[in-house]
Amino acid sequence: MPRSTRRRPALAHPATEEIDLLDVLHALSDPTRMTIVRVLRAEPERACGTFPVDVAPSTLSHHFKVLRESGLITQREEANRRFSALRTVDLERRFPGLLDTVLAAYGRTGGGAEARGGGEACGGEDG
Amino acid sequence: MPRSTRRRPALAHPATEEIDLLDVLHALSDPTRMTIVRVLRAEPERACGTFPVDVAPSTLSHHFKVLRESGLITQREEANRRFSALRTVDLERRFPGLLDTVLAAYGRTGGGAEARGGGEACGGEDG
Repeated sequence: MPRSTRRRPALAHPATEEIDLLDVLHALSDPTRMTIVRVLRAEPERACGTFPVDVAPSTLSHHFKVLRESGLITQREEANRRFSALRTVDLERRFPGLLDTVLAAYGRTGGGAEARGGGEACGGEDG
Repeated sequence: MPRSTRRRPALAHPATEEIDLLDVLHALSDPTRMTIVRVLRAEPERACGTFPVDVAPSTLSHHFKVLRESGLITQREEANRRFSALRTVDLERRFPGLLDTVLAAYGRTGGGAEARGGGEACGGEDG
């Protein structure tokens, strides 16, 4: 069945009060996932396949799934495109100051050298 | 050869400017390692085998190694005992506010239920 017409399962997102700090730290401990979070920090929403990361689609799909299931991002589907957004408000409510502190630390220690490229996949339930 | 007389290799510690944020986040993303860090936050130094964690010695040894190699702790040996300490000053210089913010987040979301028990191992180069 082509991907465009395949029925996808609903995307799992933890409620704000269920967001686990250790899951969030794990999600942030990878350079590709950190890049995605930094990109989403600068804009409200972004379509999958447009992130400046250079990894295989299946790998990228896994990274988006880790980010979503940790509570760092939400994802929604619209006309066969998937959009991702950072859960800034939820995260600030759950862990005040955490995201700002982590992103500032990453930025000030030269962690901002992003790989360039583009991925197609974007975190399906099976990916 | 008994452990007490075995010659151990020197313990590896990254310099402050080499401490990598993603390594630190990864090190903090595990409940046993988080417990060790929280214990060390409250006292200057602690002997291995006295931490309130309930994992196998080989697992505990791995956790200490991850913590040390990430730059979160230092370890030193004295009379066949190994002592661990949090690199509070180094971490604050490298990533201002990070440790406080993470530990506060962990504390306020109920992450403080520590396992009880005791481990013998403590992060040798081979463990």
